[in-house]
Amino acid sequence: MRAPIAFWFDPVSPFGYIGSIAIERVAAKHGREVDWRPFLIGVTVLKVMGMKPLREYPLKGPWLERDMQRLAEYFDAPLRPHGLKGINSVAACRAFLWIKAREPALAKLFAQNIFAKLWTRGEDITPVAAVVAEAAALGVDGAALSEALAGDELKRALRRSVEEAMAQGVFGAPSFVADGELFWGNDHIWMLEHWLAHGDFKRR
Amino acid sequence: MRAPIAFWFDPVSPFGYIGSIAIERVAAKHGREVDWRPFLIGVTVLKVMGMKPLREYPLKGPWLERDMQRLAEYFDAPLRPHGLKGINSVAACRAFLWIKAREPALAKLFAQNIFAKLWTRGEDITPVAAVVAEAAALGVDGAALSEALAGDELKRALRRSVEEAMAQGVFGAPSFVADGELFWGNDHIWMLEHWLAHGDFKRR
Repeated sequence: MRAPIAFWFDPVSPFGYIGSIAIERVAAKHGREVDWRPFLIGVTVLKVMGMKPLREYPLKGPWLERDMQRLAEYFDAPLRPHGLKGINSVAACRAFLWIKAREPALAKLFAQNIFAKLWTRGEDITPVAAVVAEAAALGVDGAALSEALAGDELKRALRRSVEEAMAQGVFGAPSFVADGELFWGNDHIWMLEHWLAHGDFKRR
Repeated sequence: MRAPIAFWFDPVSPFGYIGSIAIERVAAKHGREVDWRPFLIGVTVLKVMGMKPLREYPLKGPWLERDMQRLAEYFDAPLRPHGLKGINSVAACRAFLWIKAREPALAKLFAQNIFAKLWTRGEDITPVAAVVAEAAALGVDGAALSEALAGDELKRALRRSVEEAMAQGVFGAPSFVADGELFWGNDHIWMLEHWLAHGDFKRR
């Protein structure tokens, strides 16, 4: 078993949601584990890169909407775009890190449930209370998580995670890192698979 | 034989160069012709979308450089990045349209030679003289082309071509349009191939 594939996600991204479903299947097929790692698009794309959300650009926006549908169909992701505004994933990402430090397998399940909450049921994942309830439903100690979410340690932990993402070159969601190679977007999963199978990019 | 695949290109794009090599192989494999159509990234990306060239963004820039290498390797494109500044393809695109209106098969060869000039030999394709010389080397009437390049008709023809690109939703290079479906980027060629083979996006 070689090193895990890092899966960099932000729950606010519908493409990240599609990727969260796709990567588990791809990794299993190639005998790899997936290491789920959160980051914030609001920091990488908006703040560091100085871009708008990509779907707000003329021409690119409509194309991305269509691409989202096609990719969801191909990767069997039951995506249902929501009409919510001002979603942010800060509490969800912090809670993920807290759970992961205690029970890694449960953390992945938590993240999958957060994705499903937003992207299949159209429910807001922003409020701390919603995040804690989602964790508690998995048997996590809600009171202890709430207390942690109010403290500074988790803030620092998420900041470190975002910095590590950028140190690996990650900017968008989903991103996959395998053996030092970075792949951005579900449209690159075929290249990731090629890399996992062959360790190079020569066409066979 | 079904309708041709529209291949929207701008000679200034290295990804467009890779795509120009990839698309001919893909189309042949699926029994399709390729209709080469020029547009200007300077209009779509810079002016209409208000973006910088994508490779100038932090984080995304280095990733795109690596991706360019990987894609060139996979699609067998002998790409050699040049250090030239201020390249523009306006004369080359106008000349392409003039040749295409007279000898469509020759126009494709001309565009392929323009791509190779810039992306394998690192020679500037901006000057009108360089463009005319490239056309003349294929047997095109250089004097007549020079005269046409000085007139307004070709300016209008290229403007129309760029407008048609945008009407089809095209913004970046390379873009491929098959049966109304738009695919942007060499990373989407696997989806184009899936579409050509099956007419849908269900995974098999």
